Amino acid sequence: MKFQITPPDKALIPKLQERIDNLTKPKGSLGILEELAVQIGCVQETLQPKLRNPHHILFAADHGIADEGVSPAPKAVTHQMLANFWTGGGGINFLCRQHGFQLQLVDAGVDCDFAEDTPIIHKKIRKGTRNFLYEPAMTAEEMELAINEGAKQVQQAFQKGCNVISFGEMGIANTSASAMWTHFFTGIPLEQCVGAGCDHTGEIIRHKLKVLAQAKANYKGDGSTTDILAYFGGYEMVMTVGAMLKAAELKILILVDGFIMSACLLGAKKLYPLVQEYAIFGHKGNEVGHQLLLEYLEAKPLLHLGLRLGEGTGAVCAYPLVESAVNMLNEMVTFEEMKVSKYF
Amino acid sequence: MKFQITPPDKALIPKLQERIDNLTKPKGSLGILEELAVQIGCVQETLQPKLRNPHHILFAADHGIADEGVSPAPKAVTHQMLANFWTGGGGINFLCRQHGFQLQLVDAGVDCDFAEDTPIIHKKIRKGTRNFLYEPAMTAEEMELAINEGAKQVQQAFQKGCNVISFGEMGIANTSASAMWTHFFTGIPLEQCVGAGCDHTGEIIRHKLKVLAQAKANYKGDGSTTDILAYFGGYEMVMTVGAMLKAAELKILILVDGFIMSACLLGAKKLYPLVQEYAIFGHKGNEVGHQLLLEYLEAKPLLHLGLRLGEGTGAVCAYPLVESAVNMLNEMVTFEEMKVSKYF
Repeated sequence: MKFQITPPDKALIPKLQERIDNLTKPKGSLGILEELAVQIGCVQETLQPKLRNPHHILFAADHGIADEGVSPAPKAVTHQMLANFWTGGGGINFLCRQHGFQLQLVDAGVDCDFAEDTPIIHKKIRKGTRNFLYEPAMTAEEMELAINEGAKQVQQAFQKGCNVISFGEMGIANTSASAMWTHFFTGIPLEQCVGAGCDHTGEIIRHKLKVLAQAKANYKGDGSTTDILAYFGGYEMVMTVGAMLKAAELKILILVDGFIMSACLLGAKKLYPLVQEYAIFGHKGNEVGHQLLLEYLEAKPLLHLGLRLGEGTGAVCAYPLVESAVNMLNEMVTFEEMKVSKYF
Repeated sequence: MKFQITPPDKALIPKLQERIDNLTKPKGSLGILEELAVQIGCVQETLQPKLRNPHHILFAADHGIADEGVSPAPKAVTHQMLANFWTGGGGINFLCRQHGFQLQLVDAGVDCDFAEDTPIIHKKIRKGTRNFLYEPAMTAEEMELAINEGAKQVQQAFQKGCNVISFGEMGIANTSASAMWTHFFTGIPLEQCVGAGCDHTGEIIRHKLKVLAQAKANYKGDGSTTDILAYFGGYEMVMTVGAMLKAAELKILILVDGFIMSACLLGAKKLYPLVQEYAIFGHKGNEVGHQLLLEYLEAKPLLHLGLRLGEGTGAVCAYPLVESAVNMLNEMVTFEEMKVSKYF
């Protein structure tokens, strides 16, 4: 699939900056909120941006590599947690309710047969990827399909008026897939990309690293971006890549969560470098691999709360700050308007 | 004034922790939100805390030390900005609206005659403190009065059902007063307590340090907590101390903003050490003095956004995270409730 991604309107920067500098506060004193306001103004091509109908799309899928014991959690947790999300009891649920996000759950490739009337969007590519220790996780055709399906979900949100979107995932072993993407796309050593995931012991981490190093040794692909995406990716991750690219094409702000979603943004950026101009990074976790990836991307995440749950929680959690940036621009008055001595 | 501050109910910690550990997420994976939930549960003495009717009380006053040119902003900015707040155009205004805070503006000692029908609470102790380079900023009687008035504001909010409260300030030169309190109460060297304030140049900082070092040399008081509070304090700061102590007495959660509000919490803690058990720190700024003070207090602020506006903006900005901690506790289900394999 092809995407037509154009850059945000950077010609607006001086006007946005002038407005922000004249608001009744010392220059720069609202810190990162001011930088965010400039980014959002450029994306929406206006001095008065609005956030509308935020969506959170959570893609779920299983991973063949889970068979190698890279995660202490059994594969079944993927579909069990998906059920937790559709009944509203998960971490991402209370955050979506709190911040007014419409939550959409997409089965991208969960290893489970869901009844047709299950309140999820059925886009299962296959019941889990293949085991990339021995073979490509997915075919090129499956990848193309996943990218298209991800894009479609965003298109539908857009048609409902959404202009800010967050992504999350559920998929046991997807930190392994993310580690491989990060390693191949950035050159960060594999041992630094492999961390505790959501909660592993030292022994599991050592085993995980051994498995992934062997998977790397076994890899005989051509090293192209699309080959790496398909060989190691999860269906939920590739759908997210497609979704992020479509969001950028539609000039929708993208809220990026933790390690896995950052790896998806990285994958999307390898295909279309401009995608990052639409991205706002929600959270920096404690995992080294994520921190190095954020540095590589020169990203400035809004929160550092020690979250490591996934699901997109770190992105949605940060949303009020995005709203604050927009409110600053729309609601604060200038020194001239208020007749306050311009003290800086 | 005496306060009856009792500790939060720490006997609840094991029960709160057990509930949090059984929610459908890896143990500890909601990071600081989990720690916050434990604190709030203990303060409210329940496994199901609720946040009610949040208030933001902003105390404003002028400082005699401003006459020494320690701030580039003229004193008049204090009352001009107060007018900006009551007409709704300041930084703290959009944040209070965004997060549902009732904003109350208190004239604690602004150097300006406000008409009686001005929409502020008239509690002026005096038109600005005296210049502490030469004499005590306030008398012991004025300090007592300010503490009582601060406490009364909180009592009134409490009677309206408020159980979470944030404080802010407006007062040109109040970083100088805060630097003196911090230095005397913590032993952090004065040169590390003196920073850029909201926006100073290197030259003003050097001058500010010189003035404050001279004020220290001139100080001939008894070094007691109350003497330091009165000698260097601002009326808005001492009112905040009284307000914080009353909040702790009433088991109201206290949201603490940046350097000045942290210095007030420090002052309150010198009088009643238990006050900090009720405090949630909103924001860590870039100023070294504030960072050292937070380390001294062993505080873990929720945000690091490079804010340096004051007004309480960093505290109110962090409020959604406090709500998230409470929502986690009340809305997430446990592994048993959801029949998810307990994977950790």
